[in-house]
Amino acid sequence: MKFCSECSSPVELAIPDGDNRPRHICNSCNTIHYVNPKIVAGCLAHWEDKVLLCKRAIEPRYGLWTLPAGFMENGESTEQAALRETWEEATAKVSIQHLYTMYSIPHISHVYLLFRGQLDNLAFKPGVESLDVKLFTEDEIPWGQLAFPVVTRTLKQYFQDRRNDHYPLDTDTIIKPGTTSS
Amino acid sequence: MKFCSECSSPVELAIPDGDNRPRHICNSCNTIHYVNPKIVAGCLAHWEDKVLLCKRAIEPRYGLWTLPAGFMENGESTEQAALRETWEEATAKVSIQHLYTMYSIPHISHVYLLFRGQLDNLAFKPGVESLDVKLFTEDEIPWGQLAFPVVTRTLKQYFQDRRNDHYPLDTDTIIKPGTTSS
Repeated sequence: MKFCSECSSPVELAIPDGDNRPRHICNSCNTIHYVNPKIVAGCLAHWEDKVLLCKRAIEPRYGLWTLPAGFMENGESTEQAALRETWEEATAKVSIQHLYTMYSIPHISHVYLLFRGQLDNLAFKPGVESLDVKLFTEDEIPWGQLAFPVVTRTLKQYFQDRRNDHYPLDTDTIIKPGTTSS
Repeated sequence: MKFCSECSSPVELAIPDGDNRPRHICNSCNTIHYVNPKIVAGCLAHWEDKVLLCKRAIEPRYGLWTLPAGFMENGESTEQAALRETWEEATAKVSIQHLYTMYSIPHISHVYLLFRGQLDNLAFKPGVESLDVKLFTEDEIPWGQLAFPVVTRTLKQYFQDRRNDHYPLDTDTIIKPGTTSS
């Protein structure tokens, strides 16, 4: 951010009075511009012993497989965001059962909220952001071709939980590879 | 938003190619400015049969009681945000047990994430955003003086769950009073 989005004056990075972190501040109209983490909402959609994955048609990680998920929009609930993304990426209808994984990724300021849900039917097909959409059993998952660590983590957790037919919420913080947690 | 924060040109509200919602777009440098929901993270901190509430020293809802919570910042996890807010508002140290309530509030684009946790000790006192900080039993809760519907909802859920000593995640969408869910 270089300019104030309210008055177009240059902004400076400084700690506002009564605050403890640097913010972009406009000294002309006194607006403080806050930036906050984004929610990525999506679905682990299952059918019998299989889960639905999408092959990405966009960067980053073009051509790798992922769970349908994307940025939550203003004006929707977390569940609505997860269902919308699943529809946009896989043209799939899902009945959400419960929040299944919540992962914070502080180094990119994302919070993943993935819901476990049952596919309503098999009438799915790739949306514009997907090259392909398929159901995979545990043995068929392309483990070496998954797009993001949170996808690998959620799928491993799911197939483990499936053995006990018990799916407790899994929450964690994903640390940038090569660094240690504070 | 009136001006581009990257180049200071006026922005217009339009649907970008390949998108389906209006965004603020800069036709000079081609930046698309996305706005996403904010996470409000906090704690339901308990001690014996009591929970910790803060009397707000700031607007909105000055003078009303709330659970310690506030906007999650970039670079932190949801749990870190909840603990930081609890420290800032109540100077209280808490050991988080689990995510307890997740409420979407689409009409203001907030997602509440409240964690249940045990107070580490009784050395709490008001932070700068609080007039007072106190422990309340169920009978003592100032039900008519609570700041936000999500606070009332979480406290009611908590004292009900406490009877069974079982605290499942409560998720819901809070609809604007006077409207109906779509």
